[in-house]
Amino acid sequence: MELKECMNFLLSVSQNKVFKYFSKLLEEYELTPAQYGVLNCLWSEGQLSPKQIGEFMYLEAPTISGILDKMQKAGFIERSVDPENRRNVLVVATQKSMELQDKVEAATAEMNNAALQNLSARDKAVLMKSLDTIIKSDF
Amino acid sequence: MELKECMNFLLSVSQNKVFKYFSKLLEEYELTPAQYGVLNCLWSEGQLSPKQIGEFMYLEAPTISGILDKMQKAGFIERSVDPENRRNVLVVATQKSMELQDKVEAATAEMNNAALQNLSARDKAVLMKSLDTIIKSDF
Repeated sequence: MELKECMNFLLSVSQNKVFKYFSKLLEEYELTPAQYGVLNCLWSEGQLSPKQIGEFMYLEAPTISGILDKMQKAGFIERSVDPENRRNVLVVATQKSMELQDKVEAATAEMNNAALQNLSARDKAVLMKSLDTIIKSDF
Repeated sequence: MELKECMNFLLSVSQNKVFKYFSKLLEEYELTPAQYGVLNCLWSEGQLSPKQIGEFMYLEAPTISGILDKMQKAGFIERSVDPENRRNVLVVATQKSMELQDKVEAATAEMNNAALQNLSARDKAVLMKSLDTIIKSDF
């Protein structure tokens, strides 16, 4: 097989390139791409348990827990006990991260535009749908 | 932006999933996905300098150098001085890795089939071409 037909190679090289570019754009806000993912979930859903955030992001509980610890220390999120179920933790975005939303979403759009700059609208749509299909496939 | 429209998210989650699956398949041969990439280049090109391998794989010199060190220790490659230019190092696959080629290429095909199982032939082609376009885009 030619290397450029190997899905692991294609995904690793493109992911590495896009991740580096996005990381650099987010540096200004002292956020990482994974932390952006958490904030994206909270901005659209309001409050979520760590488990729900993990489900949105396809990450395991210990990984999410580590990301949330750092975000809490940096003042981006707060954790509180769910009044409806005291064994449940609820995560919310702080005022500090709410204020960053417009700028951070602009940085995300900039990353998407850079990554997709040479693709037709049709190919962009197929690409995004295909990656989502891979994520949801059973293997 | 919805998380599933964020290219960094789509690439990170799909890459992580495919990489884990491929790593597991290659474990039997005590190879990593990056080491497979090196062998793939050597199997098709014969002998290459570390710089050429880095160009094929879009990896920096120190990264390639670390991968080659481990592969040499494990007996997958050998490094020798280029008789035509004594400042140049040439990397070749050993007999041991040559003997693994068919099985390792079968594992790679299995990974590709798993990743692409739910995509039409047309979407597979668009996906691969689009990822290659991202890799070659200027950003």
